[in-house]
Amino acid sequence: MTGRIRTALLGATGYAGVELARLLGNHPQVEKLLLLRRNGVTKDSYAAELFSASPDSNGFDFHPLDWGFLKRHEVQLLLLATPHQVSRSLVPEAIAEGLRVIDLSGAWRLKQAKHRSAYGFRDEDSITASELTSKAVYGLPELSGDCIAAATLVANPGCYATSIILALAPLLKADLINCEHGIISDSKSGVSGAGKEPTERTHFVSVADNLSAYSVFNHRHCGEIVEQLNISSSEFIFTPHLLPIPRGIMSTIYVRLKCMTKESEIESCYRAFYAGKRWVRVFATPRLPQIRFALHTNYCDLGFCLSDDGWRLVIVSCVDNLLKGAAGQAVQNMNVMYGWGEEKGLQ
Amino acid sequence: MTGRIRTALLGATGYAGVELARLLGNHPQVEKLLLLRRNGVTKDSYAAELFSASPDSNGFDFHPLDWGFLKRHEVQLLLLATPHQVSRSLVPEAIAEGLRVIDLSGAWRLKQAKHRSAYGFRDEDSITASELTSKAVYGLPELSGDCIAAATLVANPGCYATSIILALAPLLKADLINCEHGIISDSKSGVSGAGKEPTERTHFVSVADNLSAYSVFNHRHCGEIVEQLNISSSEFIFTPHLLPIPRGIMSTIYVRLKCMTKESEIESCYRAFYAGKRWVRVFATPRLPQIRFALHTNYCDLGFCLSDDGWRLVIVSCVDNLLKGAAGQAVQNMNVMYGWGEEKGLQ
Amino acid sequence: MTGRIRTALLGATGYAGVELARLLGNHPQVEKLLLLRRNGVTKDSYAAELFSASPDSNGFDFHPLDWGFLKRHEVQLLLLATPHQVSRSLVPEAIAEGLRVIDLSGAWRLKQAKHRSAYGFRDEDSITASELTSKAVYGLPELSGDCIAAATLVANPGCYATSIILALAPLLKADLINCEHGIISDSKSGVSGAGKEPTERTHFVSVADNLSAYSVFNHRHCGEIVEQLNISSSEFIFTPHLLPIPRGIMSTIYVRLKCMTKESEIESCYRAFYAGKRWVRVFATPRLPQIRFALHTNYCDLGFCLSDDGWRLVIVSCVDNLLKGAAGQAVQNMNVMYGWGEEKGLQ
Amino acid sequence: MTGRIRTALLGATGYAGVELARLLGNHPQVEKLLLLRRNGVTKDSYAAELFSASPDSNGFDFHPLDWGFLKRHEVQLLLLATPHQVSRSLVPEAIAEGLRVIDLSGAWRLKQAKHRSAYGFRDEDSITASELTSKAVYGLPELSGDCIAAATLVANPGCYATSIILALAPLLKADLINCEHGIISDSKSGVSGAGKEPTERTHFVSVADNLSAYSVFNHRHCGEIVEQLNISSSEFIFTPHLLPIPRGIMSTIYVRLKCMTKESEIESCYRAFYAGKRWVRVFATPRLPQIRFALHTNYCDLGFCLSDDGWRLVIVSCVDNLLKGAAGQAVQNMNVMYGWGEEKGLQ
Repeated sequence: MTGRIRTALLGATGYAGVELARLLGNHPQVEKLLLLRRNGVTKDSYAAELFSASPDSNGFDFHPLDWGFLKRHEVQLLLLATPHQVSRSLVPEAIAEGLRVIDLSGAWRLKQAKHRSAYGFRDEDSITASELTSKAVYGLPELSGDCIAAATLVANPGCYATSIILALAPLLKADLINCEHGIISDSKSGVSGAGKEPTERTHFVSVADNLSAYSVFNHRHCGEIVEQLNISSSEFIFTPHLLPIPRGIMSTIYVRLKCMTKESEIESCYRAFYAGKRWVRVFATPRLPQIRFALHTNYCDLGFCLSDDGWRLVIVSCVDNLLKGAAGQAVQNMNVMYGWGEEKGLQ
Repeated sequence: MTGRIRTALLGATGYAGVELARLLGNHPQVEKLLLLRRNGVTKDSYAAELFSASPDSNGFDFHPLDWGFLKRHEVQLLLLATPHQVSRSLVPEAIAEGLRVIDLSGAWRLKQAKHRSAYGFRDEDSITASELTSKAVYGLPELSGDCIAAATLVANPGCYATSIILALAPLLKADLINCEHGIISDSKSGVSGAGKEPTERTHFVSVADNLSAYSVFNHRHCGEIVEQLNISSSEFIFTPHLLPIPRGIMSTIYVRLKCMTKESEIESCYRAFYAGKRWVRVFATPRLPQIRFALHTNYCDLGFCLSDDGWRLVIVSCVDNLLKGAAGQAVQNMNVMYGWGEEKGLQ
Repeated sequence: MTGRIRTALLGATGYAGVELARLLGNHPQVEKLLLLRRNGVTKDSYAAELFSASPDSNGFDFHPLDWGFLKRHEVQLLLLATPHQVSRSLVPEAIAEGLRVIDLSGAWRLKQAKHRSAYGFRDEDSITASELTSKAVYGLPELSGDCIAAATLVANPGCYATSIILALAPLLKADLINCEHGIISDSKSGVSGAGKEPTERTHFVSVADNLSAYSVFNHRHCGEIVEQLNISSSEFIFTPHLLPIPRGIMSTIYVRLKCMTKESEIESCYRAFYAGKRWVRVFATPRLPQIRFALHTNYCDLGFCLSDDGWRLVIVSCVDNLLKGAAGQAVQNMNVMYGWGEEKGLQ
Repeated sequence: MTGRIRTALLGATGYAGVELARLLGNHPQVEKLLLLRRNGVTKDSYAAELFSASPDSNGFDFHPLDWGFLKRHEVQLLLLATPHQVSRSLVPEAIAEGLRVIDLSGAWRLKQAKHRSAYGFRDEDSITASELTSKAVYGLPELSGDCIAAATLVANPGCYATSIILALAPLLKADLINCEHGIISDSKSGVSGAGKEPTERTHFVSVADNLSAYSVFNHRHCGEIVEQLNISSSEFIFTPHLLPIPRGIMSTIYVRLKCMTKESEIESCYRAFYAGKRWVRVFATPRLPQIRFALHTNYCDLGFCLSDDGWRLVIVSCVDNLLKGAAGQAVQNMNVMYGWGEEKGLQ
């Protein structure tokens, strides 16, 4: 098969990283996948994490990260499912080595310094970091396909952000939303979104039979949402909640429209915007997405309800946080970067 | 013990009815509890429902509903956990027989005909129904304690409505909310709120690992919420969701304030309003209620987050839908009607 | 692609049927899949069931069952995900029409009349039924691959039975088990195994936070287990339990060995028996299968613990009840019947 | 009220300890409950654990453990919900100070050194420990009520052990069981049984939608089970499983009878043994206990199925692991030690 590439993945331990390893391992255009490990992280812990489902781990090999090693194996694309700080320090080196990079962390998503401060980055650290920050492409293929195709560094979006931006972008572009009135996203996520580290918060007994809100008014994803949608922080309220399910996100979004609008106009707006987009499904009223419809798929499912008076709109947006919200979107970005069909390796 | 009364309960089969039977059976002021059954519903089906947890059902008796029977047993208070239509037709008779009534259905909650239409009631049916509608007291003890104490007919509030009204009443009374801007309640309920009837929607496989929104813009509880809060329907958006948990409700509520406000002012407003109220807990910031904190209690838990600019408020309100949202509140109403302490039988 | 066939599926409404439609729709050797509906079952209810996850159902068509229609479309293979009685009456007609059949129900699994009585079949009904009963092949490819390859009618095994037979067959063949001592399978299944019909038993509130045993000593799957393993009913105890999860089965199986045995002998026995078998994974001690490792795969995962004295063995066997326990195994059987690789369409 | 006592509790942080604090705080015979903290564990962490459900922690005080302090407050009874090693070292001091002690850990349950080795205790450490070991009473009130009444040190049983011993003791006493054939307990527990420490194993994503077996043939509770039932270790197989529920245990137990027996004989045996025992419920066939029936109660629920041939018996036993399996049983033991009714503070 022509156009096959060699890839390497660092961080196949967290939930998104394991999902990404699985997807890349089965991708028809991926000729080789090298699994990398960071210094100080043993092969065994990686193997245990990645292949806990496997009766034995023979045949898997984790290589220490080494640029010469990647070069010898003719790796073209590096995927990072690493913590923010690790991505922030590794990516400049990788780019300098001539690699293209898809980074799943929040390290390169934000253009404005005030938003980056939520991650504790100090841009003065290096000129390279400043330059890369401006060159990094926010990897939401439905919005920035052309830039992604040409990108050296793709910053894979956050899971909540994906569900919210895809729900709002068509309406904002069509200038239907009264932003000054305020936009509210009441979002709910499964526990894998909180990461793999065992904490009191992720203990089964804390989550089961429960619902809790957290990080109200100060969740890190706010920055990328307002930047990508080009709205003001003071116009946006975001309340994440922790659901007693392993995976999946629903965002219930509330907006006031600029003028009285018909249901059919809203639907047309969505359908026109997402015409030809493989991984967004627009539900016809009165049907609404549910989390389970999107689970184990790369879809972002969108539906809505309009008030009788035609002024108030409730949008429901669902994604699988580990697929369209992370690993699936990374593969979709890879497909765009190399000119393959967006559906490759994701069906 | 002085002041003990004899009670009868019709409808100890649904989730709320069984919970109410349990509470009444252990209540120190309830001298006798007669369990009633409707014509055509066999004793066995009742017993099976109510006492499925019990190794045998000896000692329980379900009596057919018969006013003379209640009179002979000197029953003073009738509690109804019956469908709306059943309550609508039975209550006038019960009142005529000299009984006081607490009705857990939606039959008598609504003052305005336009809201009652959601339940399909035609008021022209009888003069008695019209009269009773205006005399019925909405049973939220924290708001209308005095009226409940004197009431003949108490309409026990809906579960969602309880969580929302208690969250908003203090702020509305203090005139802090900009109602014209709109009030949004994004609410989430456990499955027992959807009733005991097995349907595709309540099937375990439909609910588990899932979240779904329903009845957006047209849930029946909207009527009682806007009536009790004295706000306009067009100012209120209510989106209920079905959570994969057996019981519990969280309402996440979004309001714009009339002027820039401090966190301490919001907290003071709540604390002043609920001073001396046994069954509302106000959480100090930054702590927020979670559903599990309210489970198996009669509490309504309230907490909030204020935006940095002091204009936008997110309120989190949690109740156990079967206790403060139904059976527990019914017992609390009974306590108020008979002048016992509000905590009796609920600890 | 050579060797592609045309298929038809009746019963794409239950959980297994929907899963099967999904698998067949993506199978590389299936040139066409016709979705059939029974008389009296409307297209809409089928579409709703099958495609509830889809934003619209355009492009799907359910055809009334009609042998001429199938002939005109050159259908070779009919798959039935129908109730037992429906399969019992339809299969003789289908075979007479020259079709090969894979039946997912229990209608044709049992050779002995005493076991069939659990399903209420009266064999005297027809000569054809008697003949077919003896010709039907029990479709467990790891045990009867050759017969399946030549079969006209394949009776797809039950989900519990699959997990138990695959765990015991290697040890029985090697004559390691003391059958007279008794074999016990304590099995646990997710709720999709109980079917799609909403009942009190499958209501979310009945299942969540719970575990219940049922059909102790008289579950229908006992018949096929003892027939396939060639053991006596009195030697086998089977206790199924309903787990609060949507899908997945674990059988924990207890046997006494004929003589003192080493762990390595048990493992060798399993590995030898399943050498080259694509869909059975033998776990190396001390690792044990868990339900989640098998979920969304066609694997049967097997592991075991041997007592220190070498006489008592505990075997743990996990399958996804909708895949290896139903639809996946049906596809695996199809692959064997047509000589394609066993993994086709199942990865 | 006469006969009220003053108590102190160390370890109100784990799941059982918090439940115990709640029960003691509401117990009518407990005049005072002092909450103690160990050196190096701050008041804040205790308060956070114990009162996470409370909007504020005013009014609670955690005192450092100090024998003089307990004496000044006239504490008679010390309850320990502490790790095994802590109990092992503290109890001798407490006894020497004249206190009675109920210990919820495994420190004092085992009479035989070979079983204690599972906890890593070295008995040679002290003469006191050896003496105390022989004086400690295993606190299962249904079996050893008189010894508990007179005890200075009560070792509260393990949760699994409670469910298994209560299921088997009546049949063993009546000499109905063929022990040589082997006794098997396939047990399933909710996650609170695995403790409060966040680990990979208790992470929500590891537990949800899953079932896993663990510690097959070597769980610590085996020791107390075989000691209390006076059976041989080689006759007993115990397989615990981790259920995706917060609390509750079911043990499904398999025994061969000594002779052909009737259902009514089994039931009579259980009913005779537990006559007058408040906290054991025997289910009449064919009804079986389910975990949810026992949840939030102090009951041990017992039911059974007998094979048609009258030789093979399956027993189902359910408890709430935090109540009858831990804190509830501790209160029941306290009730027996002080001669109050067994139901005091547990209804």
